[in-house]
Amino acid sequence: MVDVDALKSLLPDGVVVTEAATLENYRYDWSRDPDAGTPIAVVRPTDAEQVQAVVRWAAEHHVGITPRGAGTSLSGGSSATNGGIVVSLERMRAIEIDTTTRVAVVEPGAFNAEVKAAAAQHGLWYPPDPSSYEICSIGGNIATNAGGLCCVKYGVTTDYVLGLDVVLADGEKIVLGGKRIKDVAGLSLLKLFVGSEGTLGIITRAILRLVPAQPPRATLVATFPDAESAARAVVEIGLVTRPSMVELMDNASINIVEDARTMGLDRTAGALLVIQSDAPGAACSAEIEIAEAACAKYGATECFSTDDPEEGELFVEARRAFFPALEGRGALMLEDVGAPVPQLPDLLAGIEKIAANHALAIPVVAHAGDGNTHPTIVFDPTDGAAKDRAAIAFTEIMELAISLGGTITGEHGIGRLKKELLPTQLGSRVMELNRQVKALLDPQGILNPGAIL
Amino acid sequence: MVDVDALKSLLPDGVVVTEAATLENYRYDWSRDPDAGTPIAVVRPTDAEQVQAVVRWAAEHHVGITPRGAGTSLSGGSSATNGGIVVSLERMRAIEIDTTTRVAVVEPGAFNAEVKAAAAQHGLWYPPDPSSYEICSIGGNIATNAGGLCCVKYGVTTDYVLGLDVVLADGEKIVLGGKRIKDVAGLSLLKLFVGSEGTLGIITRAILRLVPAQPPRATLVATFPDAESAARAVVEIGLVTRPSMVELMDNASINIVEDARTMGLDRTAGALLVIQSDAPGAACSAEIEIAEAACAKYGATECFSTDDPEEGELFVEARRAFFPALEGRGALMLEDVGAPVPQLPDLLAGIEKIAANHALAIPVVAHAGDGNTHPTIVFDPTDGAAKDRAAIAFTEIMELAISLGGTITGEHGIGRLKKELLPTQLGSRVMELNRQVKALLDPQGILNPGAIL
Ligand SMILES: Cc1cc2nc3c(=O)[nH]c(=O)nc-3n(C[C@H](O)[C@H](O)[C@H](O)COP(=O)(O)OP(=O)(O)OC[C@H]3O[C@@H](n4cnc5c(N)ncnc54)[C@H](O)[C@@H]3O)c2cc1C
Ligand SMILES: Cc1cc2nc3c(=O)[nH]c(=O)nc-3n(C[C@H](O)[C@H](O)[C@H](O)COP(=O)(O)OP(=O)(O)OC[C@H]3O[C@@H](n4cnc5c(N)ncnc54)[C@H](O)[C@@H]3O)c2cc1C
Repeated sequence: MVDVDALKSLLPDGVVVTEAATLENYRYDWSRDPDAGTPIAVVRPTDAEQVQAVVRWAAEHHVGITPRGAGTSLSGGSSATNGGIVVSLERMRAIEIDTTTRVAVVEPGAFNAEVKAAAAQHGLWYPPDPSSYEICSIGGNIATNAGGLCCVKYGVTTDYVLGLDVVLADGEKIVLGGKRIKDVAGLSLLKLFVGSEGTLGIITRAILRLVPAQPPRATLVATFPDAESAARAVVEIGLVTRPSMVELMDNASINIVEDARTMGLDRTAGALLVIQSDAPGAACSAEIEIAEAACAKYGATECFSTDDPEEGELFVEARRAFFPALEGRGALMLEDVGAPVPQLPDLLAGIEKIAANHALAIPVVAHAGDGNTHPTIVFDPTDGAAKDRAAIAFTEIMELAISLGGTITGEHGIGRLKKELLPTQLGSRVMELNRQVKALLDPQGILNPGAIL
Repeated sequence: MVDVDALKSLLPDGVVVTEAATLENYRYDWSRDPDAGTPIAVVRPTDAEQVQAVVRWAAEHHVGITPRGAGTSLSGGSSATNGGIVVSLERMRAIEIDTTTRVAVVEPGAFNAEVKAAAAQHGLWYPPDPSSYEICSIGGNIATNAGGLCCVKYGVTTDYVLGLDVVLADGEKIVLGGKRIKDVAGLSLLKLFVGSEGTLGIITRAILRLVPAQPPRATLVATFPDAESAARAVVEIGLVTRPSMVELMDNASINIVEDARTMGLDRTAGALLVIQSDAPGAACSAEIEIAEAACAKYGATECFSTDDPEEGELFVEARRAFFPALEGRGALMLEDVGAPVPQLPDLLAGIEKIAANHALAIPVVAHAGDGNTHPTIVFDPTDGAAKDRAAIAFTEIMELAISLGGTITGEHGIGRLKKELLPTQLGSRVMELNRQVKALLDPQGILNPGAIL
């Protein structure tokens, strides 16, 4: 057993916590992985030097570290491990907006919504917008290469990362990139750390590209008899225009959200699309009209559009309410499978078939515009047979995505819950390269042990 | 001495060439590095299997390989080495546009302009646009993470790369990514290969993201009394609007272009900005007006704007004509230094000072909107003293960029000509990581030996 008191003595009072209640609080992320362990300490550093000190100590004593932002991971990425420590970046949340360079210089614990708000004060915008933006950290976003709703038009987190400070597995801090839009000096290590899920280093600072404030958005809500026809409309929309959001909810997810909180969604709709355009000026309503025509072409039963941002936001909020609305519904297995957009109808049809085969409820919401879906298997945790069927369905859905040329995770990351199928998707040599890069940067394997690999 | 005939026998007739004239033709890239070697063979495979066969042979016989696209590198990245072979991808140039997934599936030898043209046939657009787009290959663009004129708004090559097939140093081919906008399964190896300048693998196929056709552009041309005030206007423009192009030419570069070909540029202008907006509809002229006001604020002596794409294109062409116009002017040392945009005025002022100190002509063109500049040292190659001064100035300019928080290469790559200052920019640990990643992927060091590291 390592001596945690020695670690305490290295750091200011209150940084290292070992109270049982606190340890319990930091065991799980949002996925509530039943295999999460209990850490021996939770460390909450206030600056990069403290992060370095912890990592040096952990390296010396071969102690595993779970880097943790806000713990909203849906794939067990920030689950604690037995005998390890959790390094929570929640106290490092300074945000500085550099308006002339148009970047935000951000500590990792700052929430996505806080960065957006700070940028907005200067008429600027940080586009990446995971549904969890009000409760997740920038460090976690970078570590997972988070997506979101507007990435169908504006790309994902990695597209906005210009620089990173990273504490490596031996405690040394490196600086990658900087306040520069373009920089090709040396290998692209910067982008390698984005999406590395805490397995290669701990991010202690980020330089993020900002863009001018988003123009006002118009919203189109269209209902369909079934999810497949909605998906066909999505393919068509992608062919003819470039909306800033294309979200899908199927009938089951609409009802789950309505059950939790009356939002006025049509409970009888087979599926719902929420589409936004932020094209400037007249181009905006033109884009909405094109999208509406595409919806009509594929059998939309009703279309409603509005220029009022607040009215539009209500529908987006309904979509965002899906994961929280699942609370108390039973045990969950969250998927994050993606496919090339033209295969979206097949993906949704396949998921429906899997649900029927295994007599499971699998409501689906999707960032449909980029082919990324979140089928969520809901089952009774006390029903052993249902649990087994859920596990099979979980694997089958990932296999289906791979067979369609897709991915087992579009944005949530592999974490600890999707490792099994990773070799199938990547192939043996790419898997080996993953392992080799990990071994190169973290030879002892102390950084987020058990994640990804 | 290795037996090249054995290599010839492995491949179809004509793929392996050893005629002296051909070898001579493939020694240099556009930078005409005087230290370029003479290869023992030029290999021009027609498919990935042939690339694999060559690499396997080279690995077995410890023969260095220079991967080569179209040879337009400005940093010696595709210079040949003595005793090595050149693997030219020029015959692999199939292009397939998948309109439903909105991607181009491209072989590496296809020219950037060919991909653009193929996409345009379907109303789609591949944004990255190095000035050399009519004469450079997609493989070279990916290997250098090429920039260009519109990346101030649309980002650089890496932002458009969704998938790559890569032949590794032992001849095995891996497939990374796919026709998916979002995919976070495993470490981000895809992006590691982008910008790796042929040192980690040979790209044999790429999946590139396409976007809807660019809207019509309006163009603003503004002349300034000097480069510094033009640079100040650029900073202001970046604060208030988001143009699709902000290019700068100083007085010397204007005159070099006019000398080569009368284009009607104002030879007396201290500097010239060419600004474009592609904002849709009325937003376009609004953006041009904002840019014009910014130019006026910083002392523009004349502003001219046009909605006529062809008229606008003439000025862009003038800017693009700079590198070709240098031909025959003497020896050249091409810089590619960048700085955060607010430091652009200091960077340009510093370069002028360095030119004066060393009595050298250093005309400057710049992708000013993203802080990336191309000061080009022109000197008489028969004048030994001038050559020495040029070498000193070359280093001083890179040191200046680093001191301003910038980079020694914004888009051309380190190649063989900018290696000396790379450790200064990256720091020792990041340099070491570069070397370790290289050693991991290419333990024998046969891929583009002497480049970057
Ligand atoms: C309601 C809800 C909706 C969601 N919607 C989306 C969505 O639309 N798009 C999307 O992409 N995700 C979504 N997620 C998932 C989750 O919010 C994201 O993965 C987010 O990026 C995690 O951020 P976090 O701060 O909570 O990270 P954590 O959960 O704390 O950690 C996530 C991973 O990042 C690592 N990590 C965290 N901080 C650091 C650091 N500083 N350095 C190194 N590694 C670090 C952890 O080790 C872990 O592997 C949603 C989650 C919820 C609960
Ligand atoms: C007039 C002119 C203007 C230019 N303007 C710009 C500009 O605006 N922006 C910009 O970024 N660059 C510019 N360049 C530089 C050059 O065109 C780019 O670097 C371009 O990307 C190189 O492409 P290429 O096919 O000529 O590559 P090459 O010169 O053949 O090779 C460049 C590098 O890529 C590697 N490589 C090539 N193909 C492959 C492959 N299939 N697999 C692995 N490695 C490979 C080579 O080994 C080398 O390291 C300009 C050059 C000229 C001559």
